[in-house]
Amino acid sequence: MSTQSVKAYGTEAATADLKQLNINRRETTPKDVEIDILYCGVCHSDLHTARNDWGGTVYPAVPGHEILGRVTKVGSEVTKFKVGDLAAVGCIVDSCRECASCKEDLEQYCIPGFTGTYNGKDKHLKTQTFGGYSEKVVVDEHFVLRVPENLDLAGTAPLLCAGITTWSPLRHWNVGPDTKVAVVGLGGLGHMAIKLANALGANVTLFSRSPEKTQDALDLGAHEVVISTDKAQMKSVAGKFDVIIDTVPYVHDLNPYVGTLAVSGTIVVVGYLGGLEPLLNTVPMIMGRKSVAGSVIGGIAETQEMLDFCGKHNITSEVEVINIQDINEAYERMLKSDVRYRFVIDMASLKA
Amino acid sequence: MSTQSVKAYGTEAATADLKQLNINRRETTPKDVEIDILYCGVCHSDLHTARNDWGGTVYPAVPGHEILGRVTKVGSEVTKFKVGDLAAVGCIVDSCRECASCKEDLEQYCIPGFTGTYNGKDKHLKTQTFGGYSEKVVVDEHFVLRVPENLDLAGTAPLLCAGITTWSPLRHWNVGPDTKVAVVGLGGLGHMAIKLANALGANVTLFSRSPEKTQDALDLGAHEVVISTDKAQMKSVAGKFDVIIDTVPYVHDLNPYVGTLAVSGTIVVVGYLGGLEPLLNTVPMIMGRKSVAGSVIGGIAETQEMLDFCGKHNITSEVEVINIQDINEAYERMLKSDVRYRFVIDMASLKA
Ligand SMILES: [Zn+2]
Ligand SMILES: [Zn+2]
Ligand SMILES: [Zn+2]
Ligand SMILES: [Zn+2]
Repeated sequence: MSTQSVKAYGTEAATADLKQLNINRRETTPKDVEIDILYCGVCHSDLHTARNDWGGTVYPAVPGHEILGRVTKVGSEVTKFKVGDLAAVGCIVDSCRECASCKEDLEQYCIPGFTGTYNGKDKHLKTQTFGGYSEKVVVDEHFVLRVPENLDLAGTAPLLCAGITTWSPLRHWNVGPDTKVAVVGLGGLGHMAIKLANALGANVTLFSRSPEKTQDALDLGAHEVVISTDKAQMKSVAGKFDVIIDTVPYVHDLNPYVGTLAVSGTIVVVGYLGGLEPLLNTVPMIMGRKSVAGSVIGGIAETQEMLDFCGKHNITSEVEVINIQDINEAYERMLKSDVRYRFVIDMASLKA
Repeated sequence: MSTQSVKAYGTEAATADLKQLNINRRETTPKDVEIDILYCGVCHSDLHTARNDWGGTVYPAVPGHEILGRVTKVGSEVTKFKVGDLAAVGCIVDSCRECASCKEDLEQYCIPGFTGTYNGKDKHLKTQTFGGYSEKVVVDEHFVLRVPENLDLAGTAPLLCAGITTWSPLRHWNVGPDTKVAVVGLGGLGHMAIKLANALGANVTLFSRSPEKTQDALDLGAHEVVISTDKAQMKSVAGKFDVIIDTVPYVHDLNPYVGTLAVSGTIVVVGYLGGLEPLLNTVPMIMGRKSVAGSVIGGIAETQEMLDFCGKHNITSEVEVINIQDINEAYERMLKSDVRYRFVIDMASLKA
């Protein structure tokens, strides 16, 4: 398969900084779209993969799965895109297309496993996949999203991971007008959950440990902020919420939040991978038919639905635009939650 | 409020055997139905309440919330029943009738709390409520169920707790033709879950630790039995089930069962109250949008629906009929799971 050398930014080892390097992309096949990358959002997964925090990273690693750009080439069978179109790529660049999940447009739950945009197993080149910290990307059009023309481009990039990760559970658990939604944690995911739930017509509460985030949360669309360390405030929302989107990325006690669920309510964990410590107590779950669930990103059709919704409601992520040369410093700041609310790389800085 | 003295069987202390005693029932008010009790099922909750295993038992305690009998008196405003009708009472004899749950026919999740059939707070007499181990019971007609005439009476009694406890989650999580359902544990609850899921048209699997229960499970309506301690058998059903009804009454590891859930599947805990030890791992929940939920008994309308369904499909519990004088021995056998699958008391033995 013929390839092209592409400028990128990545790392050769878990302990090394990211730096400029070259990777090979395939030339466009008949079903492929080639995209010149304009902006790429910076996700916590980027950092965890670069540093091999989850194990399994293959080096060199080039992160980035919030990709926004313009189409520069299309294969002969491509129907959805033409050269010059805005286009986006999220966390998924391939899947089996045949399993029960894929047939239901749930590529994120592909049974043999979807191909991640970076550190996945590239079926074409048989190498690891390389993400969006690069000049361009070549992706099968099925996994490329159309982008509304009216949105701020830098702010649109994070919709591809932070946006869809919160949109998918909001939709799956039927959030709409009059639904009472709570969001736990105000970061990249949390601030998108507030904006999207608000635009869906829900009544939105933010759970936060930080009173100083209150004004920001209200500005983003929350109707109320509850300080989760304040017992009286927690008690005041006992049995209230139909759906809680829990975006906290580290181990934390879910039991107090279960107490704030209404009968038949669900808390959806989207941020924390691991054991639920301390122990989850079944008593309030049984006595209130409550559910604890998980959810990961979203399918391609659902991601398109979300982008179209954001176009209609003029929703983008709050971003801090950086140059690619600032990425190592940005990772350090991200670890301290020192970003409102998402770093996005202006990829012109790589080409300069 | 005028009362009548009624013969019953109960206990004066946590460590005492059950014995014959007298209790006061209210005379029928305009909305009440008085029922001559013919059969009363024996539930694990009866034993736990008699022995104060959960704390909070008020003595004397008279258990029994699987009550089946004939109407002997009706109040002037009663419309659903006339003298001579079959009638049944389950776990709920009163609720606030005004909260969001009650308005949705979810009396089991009444926000201020429903009044349990025994060891509840009787709003009329201001004492504890007394259950079905007695000659008769007086209950507001809203909480009294109609009973299909074609069913075996003794086998119908356990539908009022074991039946509705499994019916409610099967219905809430949309079990029907082609749904893949698994049941964990083959006891009073589990055997009803198999019968009801089968009659709803589902494909039914029993998870059991005991190979010797296989034939019984197939006879009850299971299509397959998986021995949960056999790793190869567990692997063969990975990702299979849409809904799992977990009836196991003691602490156990849910993680292996989560692994057998299909994408978007739910495991519903109905038997175990307490902390989920070992820790529940969120990774498979997030990566497969799986839920862990709880559920308790069911509402009055849903209980009526279940009884009507059982009448149509001729479904009753498998029972071992005993005399009230055998109740203490029955409790000991129940602790050893030595019953197939529910003890039911022939209440004629109390009157003798
Ligand atoms: Zn991400
Ligand atoms: Zn697939
Ligand atoms: Zn019971
Ligand atoms: Zn109520």
